[in-house]
Amino acid sequence: MPTLHIQTPSAAYPVIIDKLLHDERAQIQHHGKALLVSNPKIAGLYLHKILPKIRASEVFVCIVPDGEAHKTMRTIEQILECAFAHKLDRKSLMIALGGGVISDMVGFASGIYERGIEYISIPTTLLAQVDASVGGKCGVNNAYGKNLIGLFHQPKAVYIDVDFLSTLPLRELRAGLAEVVKVFACFDSGAFEKLEAESSAFASLESSLDSRALELLPFIQRSIEIKAQVVEQDERESGIRAALNYGHTFAHVIENLTDYREFLHGEAVGIGIRMANALSLELGIMSETESRRIDSLLDRLGLQQRYGVRDVKEFYKCFFLDKKSTNNTLRFVLARGIGGFELRDDVSKAQLYKVLEKFA
Amino acid sequence: MPTLHIQTPSAAYPVIIDKLLHDERAQIQHHGKALLVSNPKIAGLYLHKILPKIRASEVFVCIVPDGEAHKTMRTIEQILECAFAHKLDRKSLMIALGGGVISDMVGFASGIYERGIEYISIPTTLLAQVDASVGGKCGVNNAYGKNLIGLFHQPKAVYIDVDFLSTLPLRELRAGLAEVVKVFACFDSGAFEKLEAESSAFASLESSLDSRALELLPFIQRSIEIKAQVVEQDERESGIRAALNYGHTFAHVIENLTDYREFLHGEAVGIGIRMANALSLELGIMSETESRRIDSLLDRLGLQQRYGVRDVKEFYKCFFLDKKSTNNTLRFVLARGIGGFELRDDVSKAQLYKVLEKFA
Repeated sequence: MPTLHIQTPSAAYPVIIDKLLHDERAQIQHHGKALLVSNPKIAGLYLHKILPKIRASEVFVCIVPDGEAHKTMRTIEQILECAFAHKLDRKSLMIALGGGVISDMVGFASGIYERGIEYISIPTTLLAQVDASVGGKCGVNNAYGKNLIGLFHQPKAVYIDVDFLSTLPLRELRAGLAEVVKVFACFDSGAFEKLEAESSAFASLESSLDSRALELLPFIQRSIEIKAQVVEQDERESGIRAALNYGHTFAHVIENLTDYREFLHGEAVGIGIRMANALSLELGIMSETESRRIDSLLDRLGLQQRYGVRDVKEFYKCFFLDKKSTNNTLRFVLARGIGGFELRDDVSKAQLYKVLEKFA
Repeated sequence: MPTLHIQTPSAAYPVIIDKLLHDERAQIQHHGKALLVSNPKIAGLYLHKILPKIRASEVFVCIVPDGEAHKTMRTIEQILECAFAHKLDRKSLMIALGGGVISDMVGFASGIYERGIEYISIPTTLLAQVDASVGGKCGVNNAYGKNLIGLFHQPKAVYIDVDFLSTLPLRELRAGLAEVVKVFACFDSGAFEKLEAESSAFASLESSLDSRALELLPFIQRSIEIKAQVVEQDERESGIRAALNYGHTFAHVIENLTDYREFLHGEAVGIGIRMANALSLELGIMSETESRRIDSLLDRLGLQQRYGVRDVKEFYKCFFLDKKSTNNTLRFVLARGIGGFELRDDVSKAQLYKVLEKFA
């Protein structure tokens, strides 16, 4: 299996594919102490498999509560407390074993521990594998919204192993596919077509838990390749990287209004993609046929969730809480047909209201 | 007055000297919102003078409690809360008006607000002017020690105005001089000699509050020049920048053991310099005469504080809590004579005990 090499202005690191659980001889080596951070569920499933692979001067474990609701400064302080208690120093390493919540928090905590130490990411969910673990965006939520406090901190290495997906709940697997649809729709019409062609196989995933991993591997790899190219060009999201937020401006509002409880992030992204496409239609940069193709792919991948906009005015106001809104202007990332994208900051309130009313 | 231009691998910014309170036409311009952060005392003295100079789309003020004891994550969250409440966005600016505590915290808070926004530093103490405001080290204390949580975040600009020093308590002014002695002793024997020559004038500072600023300006400027050169070569303290920690390894232990209450940071640095010199003597890299010259300069600058080591073993153990201690090895920055320095990680426990016992 290949290793992808990521090179950003601030760092260079490998994304090592299928070499950890898979490969008995695989090792994570570090000269110094290592602190592995995970959640109770993942630790229960995988700690005994991962710990023997870590070769460091000392290895410590820190277990933090699971879920988006715990992605807060409180948990960051819990991780830091663990690191201080075990006397990690500037040459020590943190290791994130878990989904996007864990990797976002470990990236953040390691970024501010003694002004920054290294970390390695071992994403165990599809969403984290294709999206969260590459690119160095770290952070936590607060009362004002998602990922509003954090920093850019690139990992030292990322290990992608599809074997982790065999224990992933089907709902989370499907949610992860939303991010795959996102990158393919904006960057690779060929990969989008392949995913369409195989989407019926995914639809029957319930009955083939063990084989799901293998079927997904090429799509995971292609998603990471695309994300890597984007991040290499624009580490700090001043330009093209914003394209990775396709569907997210809507999704963040939905998550905010439902208190992060009703939908998994990927599910909200699925709905956000549909809303973004409605806006693309409104602006004439996507055809009805293309919009229907994306809708239908989401449906077949099991992302059938819908969200009813209760109060158009309230929903509209929430857009302005987004990090990407500066000086009170909104910026939307929209797919242009399939395989392309546009950044638009000229969307009128009337156009947005029209789109939101469609989802009322 | 000159403007110094600092250029690090991650940023370039000006240090603008004597152009703010001094110059009626001076302005801080920013396209976007600005949040000025200060403490009650400095805000009372200077807010009415500074606010009219800020030209931004909107200007907000956030007042946080004063002092090292409040340099914590709690206060960082208070600043962030202020920023979110006023809907700062990625193009907004934070402004630090205060001493090192304020500039360290504003650098940190702005560094993690929406993954990093710009900040400007207006240091109002001598210590912050010569040390804290240049170099981009930001952070807070916790139960384990000083500045253990933070990041590197270079400011957009630094304004140095000696007029602020006219309201600075004499004790704090003297504490600031410890950092001046530090850089001159390690980097510039000529400047050290000039400071020696003028030190008797400083000793009588009590009676000349108004003129103190003018006398200090060339020393402040030279200190910043030296620090700028060091930071430009080694932004992230992998080498030469460690030299700026001369006296600090001892000082941090003293501050820790006295709960940050007995000494101002600069006072602890003054004591730390004396202890470091005792170690230099022990290692044969400084003569008795040189050590006495530095002692006597500190005395004449009003830094006569002494610290009695109560428990040599306890003091020794505290060294290992320092961020600069990695893999359980200690590293000392020592002056080599006057005008030079050495980084030493070969100091034996016996040698250290001998030095500590001298201060028992």
